[in-house]
Amino acid sequence: MDESFVALIFQHEELVLLDQRVLPTSLEYVHCKTYQDVEFAIRDMVVRGAPAIGASAAYGVYLAAKAHEDEPSFLAALTFLGNARPTAVNLAWAIKRMKGVYDQEKKGGRTHLLEALLSEAHEIRSEDICTNKEMSRIGSRVVPQGATILTHCNTGALATAGWGTALGVIKQAHYDGKDIFVYADETRPRLQGARLTAWELVEAKIPSRLIADSAAATLIRDGKIDLVILGGDRVAANGDVANKLGTFSLSVIAKAYGVPFYSVVPVSTIDFAISDGSKIPIEERDASEVTHVGSVQVAPTEIGVYNPAFDVTPHQNITGIITERGIIYPPFGENIERLRRGETL
Amino acid sequence: MDESFVALIFQHEELVLLDQRVLPTSLEYVHCKTYQDVEFAIRDMVVRGAPAIGASAAYGVYLAAKAHEDEPSFLAALTFLGNARPTAVNLAWAIKRMKGVYDQEKKGGRTHLLEALLSEAHEIRSEDICTNKEMSRIGSRVVPQGATILTHCNTGALATAGWGTALGVIKQAHYDGKDIFVYADETRPRLQGARLTAWELVEAKIPSRLIADSAAATLIRDGKIDLVILGGDRVAANGDVANKLGTFSLSVIAKAYGVPFYSVVPVSTIDFAISDGSKIPIEERDASEVTHVGSVQVAPTEIGVYNPAFDVTPHQNITGIITERGIIYPPFGENIERLRRGETL
Repeated sequence: MDESFVALIFQHEELVLLDQRVLPTSLEYVHCKTYQDVEFAIRDMVVRGAPAIGASAAYGVYLAAKAHEDEPSFLAALTFLGNARPTAVNLAWAIKRMKGVYDQEKKGGRTHLLEALLSEAHEIRSEDICTNKEMSRIGSRVVPQGATILTHCNTGALATAGWGTALGVIKQAHYDGKDIFVYADETRPRLQGARLTAWELVEAKIPSRLIADSAAATLIRDGKIDLVILGGDRVAANGDVANKLGTFSLSVIAKAYGVPFYSVVPVSTIDFAISDGSKIPIEERDASEVTHVGSVQVAPTEIGVYNPAFDVTPHQNITGIITERGIIYPPFGENIERLRRGETL
Repeated sequence: MDESFVALIFQHEELVLLDQRVLPTSLEYVHCKTYQDVEFAIRDMVVRGAPAIGASAAYGVYLAAKAHEDEPSFLAALTFLGNARPTAVNLAWAIKRMKGVYDQEKKGGRTHLLEALLSEAHEIRSEDICTNKEMSRIGSRVVPQGATILTHCNTGALATAGWGTALGVIKQAHYDGKDIFVYADETRPRLQGARLTAWELVEAKIPSRLIADSAAATLIRDGKIDLVILGGDRVAANGDVANKLGTFSLSVIAKAYGVPFYSVVPVSTIDFAISDGSKIPIEERDASEVTHVGSVQVAPTEIGVYNPAFDVTPHQNITGIITERGIIYPPFGENIERLRRGETL
């Protein structure tokens, strides 16, 4: 089974993105013709989700190479792209990987270089879809028959090049006939759960209910949740996970009431260079995300706002991190190091 | 110091309520001429907050007595009023108190009865304001100089007949020159924090910031919150507190990180007849509160929604319950029983 929509595709020299700012009430596409368009699309969250940001940035690098024949301007464009959002490591990862191709192929002439860059961007995109399918096969094993699953934010086809990470696991369990039920947190302030996950759940016909973020705690306490499955934007070398705001709170409640808690991420989301979660930069976004919902003002304009987009869940609160190379269990530091060295888990 | 607005007043035979559904962008008043108008205002949350619901219902009982000279119709009207919202005990408390006056005064003739009922409703309203001031004086003592306080939902002048419960304590600490700073949870789904508390904080010029509910956990973990102060809609005899959705989650986080956690309620919010929180009825409200924000649709209409308005915080997570008769500390069951017997705390 596959989703009935395409959220991220490169065609006719444009990165075409399903505009996630206006879902679910409008299905509109944004056409990025330049790397500046791609940077804006990432920053303004036309596209979001760590893997989708990575794939988009890869096409952005190709467009930057097209725009700038001289290397300093090209490198400046990469810095510009890399600063679009600070927390998800996949952005830096994709740019670095594309830069590697640039360094290797730039001697071969401009036409060859551009072909090689576009080919690598396509590769990053299709690898991501395959990675997601593999994570889903692996992750589905931890989902018991008849499980009720809590998820947070959006980690589906919209958050990736296709299929999804945590929501991929959930879809796989559903298509495996596991008779699952999903509670989806609405995920304030940007409401990715309400706007995007609920839409994907309806599209996939998975039995589910939407809840305010605060409703999850009582469901967990009362034994109504069998496991929590969500994504990750950057995983530190010790297993701490930076993910959408609200993840940390859920992890404390889940741990307090003994509910398994899984993060689903491709290996590209692991930042082996960062020792622990306290060193992950946490993006603060505009006050208007909290004071307004669409065109509706919900708070006095005079009030100050603190609006971090992510929080950090300590590895002690995590049962396992599901990747395409297997499930990382504690001790996370040791097992992530084994993964880094290319060993099997 | 007092607030610059009147949110609840009875004049010219009408209960006049500041319409809390449209704040902070509109200041509009709803005029309740009949008990049916009062029931609608409570059910649709023109007025909300346990003490404000109690005071409104008291005037509703007076209007019911005006409308129905025969006792069976009057009693049916009381049942109708009492069913407007299930969780806050102040509704039942106020109706019961008014019914006591009715039973005592009905032999004295209709004019006398109506005078007695209106007088009692006025008494409930003014008592509530005095009670709030007393709780604020008592509660301010637990607020350290320079404290950063986290609060949830709205517990200010808008939630009461005037002044406020938890927000009353916060205002008192501010006016006492304690140099406090407040983080206000926006409080999904009805956004009472964003719409009402933020507005009251701006009006009172208290340094503060608004946050998404999920942002509180990291602030608590990182030592940025000195104490949590919030209200309560019904307190069981063992000290369990039913309060706005999101309170329970905050209590788990606060307990895990050793941050003091206070509920501020008048004694009328204690339901001595209910042994523990599991027996408190939890209101479920309409799906549209989650799928829509004002006129803006934020989720697909096909998604199911679970929308409880309250949750229950176990007494084990509570540092103290601040009332007008003193602060109830553990053992809560014993001390609430002493309060019930009229003993001092």
